[in-house]
Amino acid sequence: MAYKILDVNSVVEHIINIKEIKEFFLDDELSVKEIGDGNLNYVYLVSSIVDSTKAMIVKQAVPYLRCVGEEFPLSRERMTYEIRALSKFKEIATNEVPLIYHSSEEMSLLIMQYLDDHTILRYGLMEQNSYANFADHISTYLASTLFFTSSLYLQSSEKRSLINEFNSNTELCKLSEDFVFTFAFMKNETNDQENVKDNLLAKKLFEDMAFKEKILDLKYRFMTQNDALVHGDLHTGSIMLNENETYVIDPEFAFVGPFGFDIGALVANLCSSYVHHHFVTQNDEFKIELLETIKNILEMFSEKFYTLWCAHKNSALLVDGYIDEQTQESFKRKFIKNIIKDSVGFAGAKMARRVFGVAGVEEIRGIKDKTTRAKAEEMIIDIAREFVMSYENIEKIEQVIEIIKEKSAR
Amino acid sequence: MAYKILDVNSVVEHIINIKEIKEFFLDDELSVKEIGDGNLNYVYLVSSIVDSTKAMIVKQAVPYLRCVGEEFPLSRERMTYEIRALSKFKEIATNEVPLIYHSSEEMSLLIMQYLDDHTILRYGLMEQNSYANFADHISTYLASTLFFTSSLYLQSSEKRSLINEFNSNTELCKLSEDFVFTFAFMKNETNDQENVKDNLLAKKLFEDMAFKEKILDLKYRFMTQNDALVHGDLHTGSIMLNENETYVIDPEFAFVGPFGFDIGALVANLCSSYVHHHFVTQNDEFKIELLETIKNILEMFSEKFYTLWCAHKNSALLVDGYIDEQTQESFKRKFIKNIIKDSVGFAGAKMARRVFGVAGVEEIRGIKDKTTRAKAEEMIIDIAREFVMSYENIEKIEQVIEIIKEKSAR
Repeated sequence: MAYKILDVNSVVEHIINIKEIKEFFLDDELSVKEIGDGNLNYVYLVSSIVDSTKAMIVKQAVPYLRCVGEEFPLSRERMTYEIRALSKFKEIATNEVPLIYHSSEEMSLLIMQYLDDHTILRYGLMEQNSYANFADHISTYLASTLFFTSSLYLQSSEKRSLINEFNSNTELCKLSEDFVFTFAFMKNETNDQENVKDNLLAKKLFEDMAFKEKILDLKYRFMTQNDALVHGDLHTGSIMLNENETYVIDPEFAFVGPFGFDIGALVANLCSSYVHHHFVTQNDEFKIELLETIKNILEMFSEKFYTLWCAHKNSALLVDGYIDEQTQESFKRKFIKNIIKDSVGFAGAKMARRVFGVAGVEEIRGIKDKTTRAKAEEMIIDIAREFVMSYENIEKIEQVIEIIKEKSAR
Repeated sequence: MAYKILDVNSVVEHIINIKEIKEFFLDDELSVKEIGDGNLNYVYLVSSIVDSTKAMIVKQAVPYLRCVGEEFPLSRERMTYEIRALSKFKEIATNEVPLIYHSSEEMSLLIMQYLDDHTILRYGLMEQNSYANFADHISTYLASTLFFTSSLYLQSSEKRSLINEFNSNTELCKLSEDFVFTFAFMKNETNDQENVKDNLLAKKLFEDMAFKEKILDLKYRFMTQNDALVHGDLHTGSIMLNENETYVIDPEFAFVGPFGFDIGALVANLCSSYVHHHFVTQNDEFKIELLETIKNILEMFSEKFYTLWCAHKNSALLVDGYIDEQTQESFKRKFIKNIIKDSVGFAGAKMARRVFGVAGVEEIRGIKDKTTRAKAEEMIIDIAREFVMSYENIEKIEQVIEIIKEKSAR
């Protein structure tokens, strides 16, 4: 079907002809509400008037930035990659990815499960909510999506096909290259100018050549290391959850990249929450819980990834009979340790870029009191810098927690 | 034009209608000779009867292995990648790549310069010929092809386009994964069975788990590290030269892979030649010349790559103003040092795989006397193993030469 932009009035008319949608709603009368999910896309909540539990989310990309308008063009191809990635992740991590009712790359349209009983993790954490199953759920998501899209599971030709599907996600990968690894660490018009101005911390960061050299290493790895299909933007705003369920959404930045990138994004955002609570709520118990969550995610990821690997003997990399069991075990353990190391490096880059770069996180940039915010930013940079400078020497997950504790104890 | 297989009788009729070919030969009467270049393709020499200096090479892939026949199918897509790579390399390293008169992916056809005054490097070295300009030429080829197809020069979108062009060279990449990094180090039906049988060296190699674990690292890097467009099979049989000119041919294994792979292939083959002369001609002077050549290639490559990098300031990786000059210099020097390290690792894998694997090199497998051949093989494995086990610790190019000297002194 040729692309056309839907609106509140035309969305029902368009989707009701789609078989899966018709089967879901039957002949119910429907209501439509536009709900702003963010800056990029149009998002509608379509629900049955007779039975409000029957509802779904309709998401469409337009060829410009929704929040700015047509004068800021942005290819709607981003929805192509969101559709492809969400479908792929749904196959692999069924419980942690929302149901997809329908998708169309031509229409840049995605119709999916309405998560009415779920909170965005970022805001849940700001409200000091505990999610006892989160580390378990998200480590399952990470271990399975990364393992099953890597050369440790796929055959060589399958891996190449996967790369073909995602390699042209050029625009959004470029955004990450620029905004995660470059502009946030130098004078640039896209930075938070008000905060950068006369700020000694910004000046020090922008002149910290040892740190920036390490960031270059990480950027190079981001651009050239084709380990697995990564979400590409797995911050705590891309996760919706409650006590029992965890869902990962919005994978439009997906590409075949380094193993550590998603794990790093998550660790970075949990650290930001930690620093937020250190200064804002000063809730020590919750801070400890956040550190436990980071530790559990890294440990559970490592174990689950290892278990998956042991259960699948033949892949592009490993051929049955090539190497003995003992060597295989040591190879795998070392390999996974390296994933953790890289994750810590990426976590550092991701944390640091949020301080002065274009897109801040609410936990820090939202702190009203300027002095407190500045202190929080200093702590973020302290932790991030240590992650970036020493990630290659991380031998035990406990060291990650130690860095956070140490940098927040002073 | 729809694909059809040419033969000695139909080749002239087909090519003479191509504009560039007609302009070259004008109305000269032409002769055609089939010349076997190898196992894969049909190769014809087409020349003018009135002026034999006017000649060109016509190369066509058939959908099977030429040397075996139709019962061994092999996709003729390999010619697609040979055409694409040769064209790309010709743009970049004009002097080191033969002239292309015409190419057609549909016809799996490549018409190129006839190198009548040039020897295949492998055989030139076996005959103890000196090529005073070779290190200079080939280091120019390596530095420029690797630099200009990498994220150190290209913009992010250009790099992704390059990957799109070569990512589906699935069959030949798989051959390398299997035959360079896997089967040659384990019991496998494709190995040189006669030599493997009751051979203690083979037994030791196949059981050398520390070595094989390191090979796995290299294989993983081969499969997932997208540094630059590499030739993919740069042994001394893929180079034709004389005193004044050096040409690189046959890049059908080309893909976007690790920087060190081509350099490693070359070092491996020069080492094999060194071991050959150690045992067969015992020509010490020529052996020293070979070591000098290896050293010169690595040093000249490093300097030329560095110079190119300094001359091109903006790329996917580096943005002007991100980092100061001094840090940039140290970053680049370290980066290039890492390319050399990886090259040594790949050289080790490539040398070792030639001993018992499916495709031996003439310098070693061609040694008639069985005892001498066994000694040569032992030395090859000795050098290769040291390369593979210690490549990450190579800090100076001199160390590479020292390893070869030390392992051949005992």
